[in-house]
Amino acid sequence: ARSPPPPPSSPTSASRTSPAPSSVDSKLIDPVRFESAFLVFLFSNLLLTMFATVLTVYVAPAAAGSGIPEVKAYLNGVDAPNIFCFKTLVVKVVGCIAAVSSSLHVGKAGPLVHTGACIASILGQGGSRKYRMTCKWLRHFKNDRDRRDLVTCGAGAGIAGAFRAPVAGVLFALETVSSRWRSALLWRAFFTTAVVAVVLRALIDICKRGRCGLFGKGGLIMFDVTSGYVNYHVIDLPPVITLAVFGGVLGSLYNFFLDKVLRLYNVINEKGRTYRLLLAATVSVCTSCCLFGLPWLAACKPCPADSREACPSIGRSGNFKKFQCPMHNYNDLASLFFNTNDDTIRNLYSNGTDHEFHITSILVFFIASYFLGIFSYGLALPSGLFVPVILTGAAYGRLVGMLIGSQSTLDHGLFAVLGSAALLGGSMRMTVSVCVVILELTNNLLMLPLVMLVLIISKTVADAFNANVYDLLVKLKGFPFLEGHAEPYMRQLSVSDVVTGPLQTFNGIEKVGRIVDILKATGHNGFPVVDEPPFSDTPLLYGLVLRSHLLVLLRKKEFISSSTASASDASKHFSPEDFAKRGSGKHDRIEDIELTAEELEMFVDLHPFTNTSPYTVVETMSLAKALILFREVGLRHLLVLPKTSKRAPVVGILTRHDFMPEHVLGLHPYLFKSRWKKVRFGKTAFSNFF
Amino acid sequence: ARSPPPPPSSPTSASRTSPAPSSVDSKLIDPVRFESAFLVFLFSNLLLTMFATVLTVYVAPAAAGSGIPEVKAYLNGVDAPNIFCFKTLVVKVVGCIAAVSSSLHVGKAGPLVHTGACIASILGQGGSRKYRMTCKWLRHFKNDRDRRDLVTCGAGAGIAGAFRAPVAGVLFALETVSSRWRSALLWRAFFTTAVVAVVLRALIDICKRGRCGLFGKGGLIMFDVTSGYVNYHVIDLPPVITLAVFGGVLGSLYNFFLDKVLRLYNVINEKGRTYRLLLAATVSVCTSCCLFGLPWLAACKPCPADSREACPSIGRSGNFKKFQCPMHNYNDLASLFFNTNDDTIRNLYSNGTDHEFHITSILVFFIASYFLGIFSYGLALPSGLFVPVILTGAAYGRLVGMLIGSQSTLDHGLFAVLGSAALLGGSMRMTVSVCVVILELTNNLLMLPLVMLVLIISKTVADAFNANVYDLLVKLKGFPFLEGHAEPYMRQLSVSDVVTGPLQTFNGIEKVGRIVDILKATGHNGFPVVDEPPFSDTPLLYGLVLRSHLLVLLRKKEFISSSTASASDASKHFSPEDFAKRGSGKHDRIEDIELTAEELEMFVDLHPFTNTSPYTVVETMSLAKALILFREVGLRHLLVLPKTSKRAPVVGILTRHDFMPEHVLGLHPYLFKSRWKKVRFGKTAFSNFF
Repeated sequence: ARSPPPPPSSPTSASRTSPAPSSVDSKLIDPVRFESAFLVFLFSNLLLTMFATVLTVYVAPAAAGSGIPEVKAYLNGVDAPNIFCFKTLVVKVVGCIAAVSSSLHVGKAGPLVHTGACIASILGQGGSRKYRMTCKWLRHFKNDRDRRDLVTCGAGAGIAGAFRAPVAGVLFALETVSSRWRSALLWRAFFTTAVVAVVLRALIDICKRGRCGLFGKGGLIMFDVTSGYVNYHVIDLPPVITLAVFGGVLGSLYNFFLDKVLRLYNVINEKGRTYRLLLAATVSVCTSCCLFGLPWLAACKPCPADSREACPSIGRSGNFKKFQCPMHNYNDLASLFFNTNDDTIRNLYSNGTDHEFHITSILVFFIASYFLGIFSYGLALPSGLFVPVILTGAAYGRLVGMLIGSQSTLDHGLFAVLGSAALLGGSMRMTVSVCVVILELTNNLLMLPLVMLVLIISKTVADAFNANVYDLLVKLKGFPFLEGHAEPYMRQLSVSDVVTGPLQTFNGIEKVGRIVDILKATGHNGFPVVDEPPFSDTPLLYGLVLRSHLLVLLRKKEFISSSTASASDASKHFSPEDFAKRGSGKHDRIEDIELTAEELEMFVDLHPFTNTSPYTVVETMSLAKALILFREVGLRHLLVLPKTSKRAPVVGILTRHDFMPEHVLGLHPYLFKSRWKKVRFGKTAFSNFF
Repeated sequence: ARSPPPPPSSPTSASRTSPAPSSVDSKLIDPVRFESAFLVFLFSNLLLTMFATVLTVYVAPAAAGSGIPEVKAYLNGVDAPNIFCFKTLVVKVVGCIAAVSSSLHVGKAGPLVHTGACIASILGQGGSRKYRMTCKWLRHFKNDRDRRDLVTCGAGAGIAGAFRAPVAGVLFALETVSSRWRSALLWRAFFTTAVVAVVLRALIDICKRGRCGLFGKGGLIMFDVTSGYVNYHVIDLPPVITLAVFGGVLGSLYNFFLDKVLRLYNVINEKGRTYRLLLAATVSVCTSCCLFGLPWLAACKPCPADSREACPSIGRSGNFKKFQCPMHNYNDLASLFFNTNDDTIRNLYSNGTDHEFHITSILVFFIASYFLGIFSYGLALPSGLFVPVILTGAAYGRLVGMLIGSQSTLDHGLFAVLGSAALLGGSMRMTVSVCVVILELTNNLLMLPLVMLVLIISKTVADAFNANVYDLLVKLKGFPFLEGHAEPYMRQLSVSDVVTGPLQTFNGIEKVGRIVDILKATGHNGFPVVDEPPFSDTPLLYGLVLRSHLLVLLRKKEFISSSTASASDASKHFSPEDFAKRGSGKHDRIEDIELTAEELEMFVDLHPFTNTSPYTVVETMSLAKALILFREVGLRHLLVLPKTSKRAPVVGILTRHDFMPEHVLGLHPYLFKSRWKKVRFGKTAFSNFF
């Protein structure tokens, strides 16, 4: 297996970020010292938020957000700048720890996916030359395909580490992140997450004596709910289906609100760095106020007599927070707010705790969690969506369980698990991976049929309203993401309908000056190479040459003086490493290459550096079918050949942008109307095998 | 979701097949009546075996074996005759019940996968017209793509039903059966198996009071091993790694022996139907002798004092079989042999039973199970490989656990689970799906890191020796299976190097007689259509027409009298349903169409029936890249265009057979030597994005 697993530091480092609002200790909560407690809470949160934001804004802006949309776009073929830099990696890890600790309602799973992908990509480019950490052996992976495989495995390792769920990691990489899949990749991803699982298990063994903070807590299964035997019958189906339907609606509403808020944030963030800092500070202060203010709404409850743990709890992670209550009482809402996310989820999932929470507390927590999650994402700091959605869903599920009351025999803890599934299904629209995440988090296989049912229903309901949250984020970021299916109107067009612009081609032996001029004038990344007479009888397509390879040629200055006779093979002056893929975000620029006037008059033989087997389509090819070829084979350039032989040997070049709906519908606005028109007979009947 | 779930009958019907050697009842085992007991056992087994074999041999030979290789080949694009007929379905279900009941060492998972795929395919072709069970609404799915999706989902439902493991069903369909995968299919497969899970759960609820035989037993989790808390440390790794390494070796040896035995069986089976019956009878008699004879080797053990169930057990499914022993004693080997497969696996997996079995019993059972499994597969009856391998693996694991003894703190039941994983990994080479199968069978999430470790090691070890068992079976059956990766030597060839034979093309308006002649003379399924002057200035490729569509045209006799002017659009005389994909195994034949001499002189306008957007490659295209296009887009025909414009507009047509290593190496035998030669510089450096 060629994909080395990410080092264990990635899962563990962020797992340690859990001890969140540790500043609110019971000693500070004293009838006369509430103000100082609030101020300590407010300012420690603000400090951590600003630390994460400053780091992100000034050092690595690419580290903001969850990073899953960027990884997803990368695996689709969109290489956003700097997403896999070493700087981004460091800021992501440190910033994520600060952000999660700052009581902001953000998760760590998304950043961990990005972290895993980052580590994978840096390994794939042979380390970081800038920071002098390179490894010769790793240069082997310096090509697009291996790096893509590594990044997929890294993303899977991220989820595997975040949820201690190795199988879910593989499935997440497959279902959500990856655009293409093959058998070997499945095996490599499995290998990666297996190593994550073994390392996690070993670290849990080492940390058993509590030497690693909260890391050792929970074991391999984070929210074990097996203690109560699950029994359900047909009578439990109506409440569960109701929960799933409304979960789907809430999930799609979540996406809708998130979209609106992110558009607003984008406007603010674009105004400058100061605005980004101000926005983060505002949200942090508001969050602190919410967290500290809302528990006052809850009434004090007397401690349960048969409690397994100390009540009221003293210290940072107890479940019975005293807050403003008298002795031997606890505030259930404070227990939810002043806890690590993990502990809150564990509380909500726990069995036999139907009477520990009051319905208003759960309602307040649900609403606060729902909107804090929406407003906390999109700040200029590393933040994930996964954990907030699980948490909100758990509260939603308990709420439904309470509202249904005695109509159902199911435990409220199980309702919480199903609520998480419903909201994940409604917002993320993943099915298999969410199912396995829930399974691996809760270790309750008997509930599997119910979880599957809930996921199916909530996803179906939510799909009726809008797209899943990651597609939405990818679209918001403006990535030219290539969808897996062709739009119906594409069947009515041929590729010649969308080919635009003057086509720039090179001769097999081309003048240096012309190459420089064309590279400066256009931003194209691939150029057809055409052999003109006397090299051939008629103009003949020789192949496709890449901009990056042309830049390598120009830098090496292996020129020849005459355009007619080819000199000795120039390729022997080059090694494959010269043409190896550069690191993420690094691109040569034509402006950086200095050439004398004499050199500009010389020639360069492009033949040895041309890809002689480019994929081609005939100009009458259906656009929908060309898209399938483009996407399934994973191309960057697709050459368009003429139908008749009387024209130039190549009539155009298709790139990813030519398939974008905006481009196609911009060229053919009348298709807007017929967008949903039924396709004509014949196009469907004569489909290919698959 | 367009893929309707398979009816619940499929999982339940075969789950009921478990009560296997029920004929050996304790009443028959009496010191003076051993002979009659043996004869009853022998002849009831023989009867059931012969029933299954006669049914398979005389009614539906396609129902023999597990069916997974056929389904796998179908999803790769190889449509073997009659594999999805209604007849095959019935024989598969009935034959599988008989075969499993007949004490043969065969499983039910493979046949259930085939059953699920069969049901899916029959639904996809709109029911069975022959048996007058059709549904108009289902005709919507009468095309290759939808039927392929349905079959994939059906295969997943089969595993989901066989092991009551819905998530494993999805993953099995993805990892093992399917050749291509897309996001929508994942969701559909999930939908299918979710319905299976809900229906299974409902049936378990209904059957709780034991009204459904053994079906209700075990609940949703077939082999629950959670009762004992699993704890393992670094010290347990060496035994586990040893188990995995030898499991890999044993798994690849299993494949090796299976291959040899199947080749022998093929020779026998080809001699005639009587030979097939004789072979099955021989194996049945030998199996009965083994099962009845081997327990005599074991010593009687006194019943444990604290046993949870009756000892010795009375009735069909107890774990303490008395066999030849005196009262209050049991024969541990008989308990393993005279039980349903499910119960034997449950026994071997159970915790705290380290002292219930003697090492020689486990050794004898392991060896018998290993070889009986190999010799039972390949008979002319429905038989699966999955359960025998799990069973053999469980015995192997216990054996290793016993040999290691006190060196490891792990329970022997856990060793049995790991042994199953090791043998599955070594033989089937699945990773994620086996991992989830084991997880869903045993409900022990804490063991996941160990299971993953074992799977990685055993698969890696076994991959060093031979291919996985399904690839081996596909190869043995001679299916032209298209591999996902290109062989290294293919990079040195261009498509023009493998195009063979005279190319048959049609004119846009072609004489009926010529069409009939060409269809009779060749077996090709696709023909290029070329427009000659006066329709165009130069000969021009118009598209590709399929043999099946030509046959529809000839049958409808929509001919025109002149070759020069096209008549009114002939396509309006046809409906899309005329061209819909026929049912599995049904093909029109040119010989069945009768045409008069007059009609043969007429013409037919092929333009409206031609696919005008066939995929094409230029003749200089690298063969490896053409294979990627062919496989990723899922083609049946790939047209080869000339490089220069002076030749015919199409120079060849590539089909699946042209990419087979036998064909390519037959044309270029010198490549045999350079098969592992390193590819030249340039071909790798200039790879495409993916």
